[in-house]
Amino acid sequence: MLLKLKMDYKQMTGQDYKAGCPPSVNDAAPNNGPAADGAGEDDTVDPWTVSTTNATGVDYDKLIVRFGSSKIDQELVDRIEKVCGQKPHRFLRRGIFFSHRDMHQVLDAYEKHQSFYLYTGRGPSSEAMHVGHLIPFIFTKWLQDVFDIPLVIQLTDDEKYLWKDLTVEECHGFAIENTKDIIACGFDINKTFIFSDLDYMGSSPEFYRNVVKIQKHVTFNQVKGIFGFTDSDCIGKISFPAIQAAPSFSNSFPHIFGSRQDIQCLIPCAIDQDPYFRMTRDVAPRIGYPKPALLHSTFFPALQGAQTKMSASDANSSIFLTDTPKQIKNKVNKHAFSGGKDTVEEHRKYGGNADVDVCFMYLTFFLEDDEQLEKIRQDYTSGALLTGELKKILIETLQPMIAQHQERRKQVTDELVKQFMTPRPLNFNL
Amino acid sequence: MLLKLKMDYKQMTGQDYKAGCPPSVNDAAPNNGPAADGAGEDDTVDPWTVSTTNATGVDYDKLIVRFGSSKIDQELVDRIEKVCGQKPHRFLRRGIFFSHRDMHQVLDAYEKHQSFYLYTGRGPSSEAMHVGHLIPFIFTKWLQDVFDIPLVIQLTDDEKYLWKDLTVEECHGFAIENTKDIIACGFDINKTFIFSDLDYMGSSPEFYRNVVKIQKHVTFNQVKGIFGFTDSDCIGKISFPAIQAAPSFSNSFPHIFGSRQDIQCLIPCAIDQDPYFRMTRDVAPRIGYPKPALLHSTFFPALQGAQTKMSASDANSSIFLTDTPKQIKNKVNKHAFSGGKDTVEEHRKYGGNADVDVCFMYLTFFLEDDEQLEKIRQDYTSGALLTGELKKILIETLQPMIAQHQERRKQVTDELVKQFMTPRPLNFNL
Repeated sequence: MLLKLKMDYKQMTGQDYKAGCPPSVNDAAPNNGPAADGAGEDDTVDPWTVSTTNATGVDYDKLIVRFGSSKIDQELVDRIEKVCGQKPHRFLRRGIFFSHRDMHQVLDAYEKHQSFYLYTGRGPSSEAMHVGHLIPFIFTKWLQDVFDIPLVIQLTDDEKYLWKDLTVEECHGFAIENTKDIIACGFDINKTFIFSDLDYMGSSPEFYRNVVKIQKHVTFNQVKGIFGFTDSDCIGKISFPAIQAAPSFSNSFPHIFGSRQDIQCLIPCAIDQDPYFRMTRDVAPRIGYPKPALLHSTFFPALQGAQTKMSASDANSSIFLTDTPKQIKNKVNKHAFSGGKDTVEEHRKYGGNADVDVCFMYLTFFLEDDEQLEKIRQDYTSGALLTGELKKILIETLQPMIAQHQERRKQVTDELVKQFMTPRPLNFNL
Repeated sequence: MLLKLKMDYKQMTGQDYKAGCPPSVNDAAPNNGPAADGAGEDDTVDPWTVSTTNATGVDYDKLIVRFGSSKIDQELVDRIEKVCGQKPHRFLRRGIFFSHRDMHQVLDAYEKHQSFYLYTGRGPSSEAMHVGHLIPFIFTKWLQDVFDIPLVIQLTDDEKYLWKDLTVEECHGFAIENTKDIIACGFDINKTFIFSDLDYMGSSPEFYRNVVKIQKHVTFNQVKGIFGFTDSDCIGKISFPAIQAAPSFSNSFPHIFGSRQDIQCLIPCAIDQDPYFRMTRDVAPRIGYPKPALLHSTFFPALQGAQTKMSASDANSSIFLTDTPKQIKNKVNKHAFSGGKDTVEEHRKYGGNADVDVCFMYLTFFLEDDEQLEKIRQDYTSGALLTGELKKILIETLQPMIAQHQERRKQVTDELVKQFMTPRPLNFNL
């Protein structure tokens, strides 16, 4: 009866019942699905669909309100700089990682010498990864380096099998191929464990125990509200969220953390993955585990514009990690949506619109130099910089970046993949 | 479109679509849930509830019609005798295993030297097992012996965790304790693999792959229909049926069967488990595997009468495998529902009713000698045998049987448990 009351309370407020504590406004009533409230009503953001009618992209401030997360403000960026003792990554400086949950708590603990671990992942739906897929990995590598902490990377090949018209073998094959690109991002083999669900679920009784614990504490009603599942969905989809949740708990990895279940997890991911972790944070205290903290990124825009997320199945929607210098040049010149004017004369006179220009957006992701980026913005806005010239800057930024990635990927042997994917102790001090 | 049509056909007929084949009456329209039709409407039979208002127990003939299975008739019993070359087990001679699916097909193949494997199991909800729990194991051991075939035994400790107010550790502990009782039934260690889901799910990528394949091919609508799940059920319950289904496919056990996925499975179980395997048989052809065959048993009655299945939580509802001779005597004398008359005089005059007498029912399960059993029935019915005398016969049958079981269980070392539960090759010719 008391349990029932507590569960109803939870259902209504989105929070665990604590005697004497009213639900806090900040944490209350997280959005329960794609159509649950009116804020940012033009934008759809869930793990399977990201769309907006706005050319500048999704309204991220509204998304923070809808999802009940917190903005990464200048104060937090400054604090990260102070705690890790390094200049903040450009993704932080430029608001590409723009939202968080409990990051202050992670830093509080770190200052008291209580460390944490990182968890990120990828759904391997094809062999081909594009530059947008690198965003969480580039940032996670930076976090690993500056905080000197262990990292687990989940490849949800089981999810892709459940959602797509692919065989188990195909999805597992994509997981292995994607792992090569992930390793090429430069992760420290002594501090990183990469796993395929199809392999690791069947290799770790501890991982499965956490999956079952989560599955016991989430109802169909809840996943229906959070993910929009229906009665026609297969039972694999319905129970999958528990598998994406489980790596948030340190005892899912006994070869790394032993039986410790109190090590805080920090998850850098694109904001569309937040529903999984809202659910995880809801369950965590009920099974005796700490809630994972999160850092959310914006979406990487398609070449055609910021209205949609890129599609791995449309070769012209992005720059792929396998593209040649010539392909990069052609794609940028031919497909990148421009904020420039129709004629050179008009452009010189009125200037371009950097806010909707995909080349400029890509440069905010990949051009390291803040001053150079600001100058490009000013020149483009004033009309001093033409669209063709802006495209050339992007092409010359991407070509060496992709070539270097391809060079590093070539060095990734099957043996190295196997090492990264073998459950084993990692080297770290917590 | 074609796929959709085939699925609708399946939904309507309970059969796979085959070009040119009308749905057969025998196999058509299996019951889709506890309340789906009127036949045997007094009886509730599903994996969690067995109840009837009838003192002789569930109406099994009606259940066969409702579930769409086939009766084990004399012809099939004779055929089993002929194929295995042994006198049929008393459970077959007396209709305790009374229903089947595809047993003729199993025997056809066996006669052509295509062998099969056995799969049975138990939900370990407590340390204490009672004599009724032994029924599937006694019969499965006989099948293993006479057909000389491998056997897998699943302990669904994950299921018990999901359904009961127990911890993961408690359920796993019960699985280990129950395994000792199962081993004490005399299974051949060279031909038997016993596993806990909590262990094996995390030890076999191949098992998990089959679980995911099944989960992709069953919708929430289907499990709602088959098992009566609701939107308030946890996602663990909703996806669990796939875990009970997976051992029906031989490639779930690569250490035993390698990558072979074509070996027929035969499942001896109580009829309340049939919903799981109706679902399994529905999925099998869609993922390229043979349908498992089944042999269904009736329920073992509670001491209080055949209206209910026994409860492991009520010590007086059955004879436990841990009971002392004195406890057995007291329980039978005090709690066993009698078909006798109120006074000796009346009993001598009118005779007793063996059909509702629990002592007589228990003897049909455990007294090997057919002639002796028939004589007891006649004498009790005529009034020559008094209730106290009948109880004495049962007590003297159970006491040595339980004592011998306890003696064999004592010999089961932790090391032996570990051996039975270690994934390893088995010794057999298929």
